[in-house]
Amino acid sequence: MLLDDKETILIGISGGSASGKTSIARRIQESYSDSDAVTIIKEDDYYKDQSFLPFEERLKTNYDHPNAFDHDLLIRHLDMLKKGEQIEKPTYDYVHHTRSDVTEIVKPTNVMVLEGLFVLENSAIRERLDIKVFVDTPADIRFIRRLQRDMIERGRSMESVINQYCNTVRVMHEEFIEPTKKYADIIIPSGGRNLVAVDLLETKINSILQNKMIK
Amino acid sequence: MLLDDKETILIGISGGSASGKTSIARRIQESYSDSDAVTIIKEDDYYKDQSFLPFEERLKTNYDHPNAFDHDLLIRHLDMLKKGEQIEKPTYDYVHHTRSDVTEIVKPTNVMVLEGLFVLENSAIRERLDIKVFVDTPADIRFIRRLQRDMIERGRSMESVINQYCNTVRVMHEEFIEPTKKYADIIIPSGGRNLVAVDLLETKINSILQNKMIK
Repeated sequence: MLLDDKETILIGISGGSASGKTSIARRIQESYSDSDAVTIIKEDDYYKDQSFLPFEERLKTNYDHPNAFDHDLLIRHLDMLKKGEQIEKPTYDYVHHTRSDVTEIVKPTNVMVLEGLFVLENSAIRERLDIKVFVDTPADIRFIRRLQRDMIERGRSMESVINQYCNTVRVMHEEFIEPTKKYADIIIPSGGRNLVAVDLLETKINSILQNKMIK
Repeated sequence: MLLDDKETILIGISGGSASGKTSIARRIQESYSDSDAVTIIKEDDYYKDQSFLPFEERLKTNYDHPNAFDHDLLIRHLDMLKKGEQIEKPTYDYVHHTRSDVTEIVKPTNVMVLEGLFVLENSAIRERLDIKVFVDTPADIRFIRRLQRDMIERGRSMESVINQYCNTVRVMHEEFIEPTKKYADIIIPSGGRNLVAVDLLETKINSILQNKMIK
């Protein structure tokens, strides 16, 4: 098989806001939760450090733009993991809108899954991916999921969700995310609930891990 | 894994004219050519018998419409294969535009691949598919491939290829094929040359076959 001889395999999962990319990554993580074979890395953990900005300024940041992310650090970390080195992954403090003081040690594993809005958009990240997945859920369904999530889980008003969606999320999606679908090796419609597609990815992961064990 | 316990697995590969679905099926066939484990079935072999029509009438048939196919026979054959029975598959005579007198014995195998324009369009066929694949190649690229193929391999004029494309192929694609993308479990962009996607499918097939062998 094409990819089974590589030392580490990096699977990138991208797609729009509320497309289901996180649930696909979570399903994969749960399938391998009792092994140390698969690691999930979330692009969201690499939001830029904004500690030098006053709080009011941090609120003005466009968090749906690629520039909100510290992709240089993410790329350095991917290279370290690929070389078999452990990383000290940043975590993000969503209350204070900046990088938290806490870091997490992530050890290299045979299979790593990188999940986030711009992992197919950044060409240096894209080059490092062995399997490129785009989760393609219709825009209306994605908006409805966001509306429900933000109103129920985050206590926001409908008006505020609609404004953010129309003024930022949707505009950034059209400019930076939708065009990256063309880079995907496979496109997964109706992400999260698409068990056959998750099964195909997990079968590939199993095959890679089995080959490592045989070696 | 989700599908590994089934007795036979039927993979459907659809997509527009010249999308690359046949090359994907051919690649899979070549990978298993020295085993009796995988069978490819082409919807094209199930074009309707037109022997009762005069030759001139047969030329008027719209071969890009679902009604040009004997889907009832195809469905009966799929059910027989799934039950472990062999079938006598029709073949098509493209010179006389009707079913040929020759049939081929096809034996049931653990994995079967059904490839054709309308295998996701017909709901009774769709229900019988365990993995639904749509090969999604941009329309301009598909037209260019068709133009080159029909001019070089079939000696047709550019004008005649363009006319057929605009008056039939494109219209039927928009009406019957493009809308079936939504039924796919995975969408494969740039079919045929997409080695990662073919690798994912072959890894799944290997996994199914290995499980059968262990049993």
